Amino acid sequence: MRQITFLLVAVATVASVIAVTAPGTGHAHQEAAPIFVTEIPPGYRDWTLISVAHEEGNLNSLGAILGNDIAIKAYREGKLPFPDGAIIAALHWRYVGSEENNKVFGRSQSFIAGPPTNVQFMVKDSRKYATTGGWGFGHFKDGKPGDEVFMKTCFPCHAAIKHRDLVFTRYAP
Amino acid sequence: MRQITFLLVAVATVASVIAVTAPGTGHAHQEAAPIFVTEIPPGYRDWTLISVAHEEGNLNSLGAILGNDIAIKAYREGKLPFPDGAIIAALHWRYVGSEENNKVFGRSQSFIAGPPTNVQFMVKDSRKYATTGGWGFGHFKDGKPGDEVFMKTCFPCHAAIKHRDLVFTRYAP
Repeated sequence: MRQITFLLVAVATVASVIAVTAPGTGHAHQEAAPIFVTEIPPGYRDWTLISVAHEEGNLNSLGAILGNDIAIKAYREGKLPFPDGAIIAALHWRYVGSEENNKVFGRSQSFIAGPPTNVQFMVKDSRKYATTGGWGFGHFKDGKPGDEVFMKTCFPCHAAIKHRDLVFTRYAP
Repeated sequence: MRQITFLLVAVATVASVIAVTAPGTGHAHQEAAPIFVTEIPPGYRDWTLISVAHEEGNLNSLGAILGNDIAIKAYREGKLPFPDGAIIAALHWRYVGSEENNKVFGRSQSFIAGPPTNVQFMVKDSRKYATTGGWGFGHFKDGKPGDEVFMKTCFPCHAAIKHRDLVFTRYAP
C-alpha cells in the first residue's frame, strides 16, 4: 500500500510538471522558457518620439525610438519601472550619406535614413514576460519575427540596464 | 483737367502700394520682405515621425523630423506641393557618444541625442509666406527665435530642393 501511494504521488507530480511546462515550452525544465513578441503592435508608426540614435559597426543604423501613450507618460513623469501596457518601438534604417543634401550644403556632412532594416519592440507585461524582466522582446525584419536563437540575445544585454528597467533609451526633450 | 486726372491716379497708386507693403514690412520696396515664424507651433513634440538625420561638421547634430497631421498625410499620399496648414518640425540635439551604451556593447559604437540645440519649423501658408516659396521658416534656440540675419539664410538653401517643394527630408517607412 505504501509503495502504491508513493507511485501515485510520483505520477501526479510528473503529470503536473508536464501540465505547467508543456504549453509554454515543451521542456520539463524548472525555469520557464522566455516568451517573445511575435506580432507587430498595431499603429506603432504613429507613436510619439522618445529619442534618436546612431549605431556604428555591424548595426550601421540610424534609429528612432517611439513609445505608445503609456510609455510616453511614464517617460515624461520619470516613473520607473514602466507600467504594464507600455510599449517601446525602435525603428532602424540603414545609415547612409545623402548626396542630395551634401550637394546643396557644398560639403559631405549629411547622413539620413536609408532602407529600413528592422523594427524592434519591448512590450511591458510583468506577468506574461516575468522570465525576461517583465518585458517581451520583439524583432521584425520585413515583417517577420526573429528566430529563437537570435531573440534569446535580447534580454541578457538589456538586463545590464536594470537600474532603468532594462531600457537603454532616455527621453530627448 | 488731364493733369489733375494723372495726379489722382498717381496718388491712388502710391497709396495702394503703401497699403499693401506697410503692414508686412514697413518698407516701400517692390518685393515684400520675408516673414518668419516667431512662435513655436503648439504640440509639435507629439507629432508623428517623418525621419531622422545626422549632420556632421559645425552642426554636429542628431535630429528627428516630425510632421503635423496635414504634413504626414501629404507625405504618405506622396502629394506635392504640401497643402497650406502643413508644418514640419526638425528637432536637433547635440550628437554625442553614449559611454553607458558602449560599456554594455563592449565597444564604441553608440551615438545618441545629447542636449537639445534647436528646433526648426517650416509652416506652409502659400499666401502669408509667398516671398519664401509658400513656407514660413522658424528657428528656436532655448525657445527664442533666430535673428533676421540668420533667418534670411533658410530660404536660399531650401530653394535648391524646389522639386520637392523645398523640403529636404523624405519619409522613412
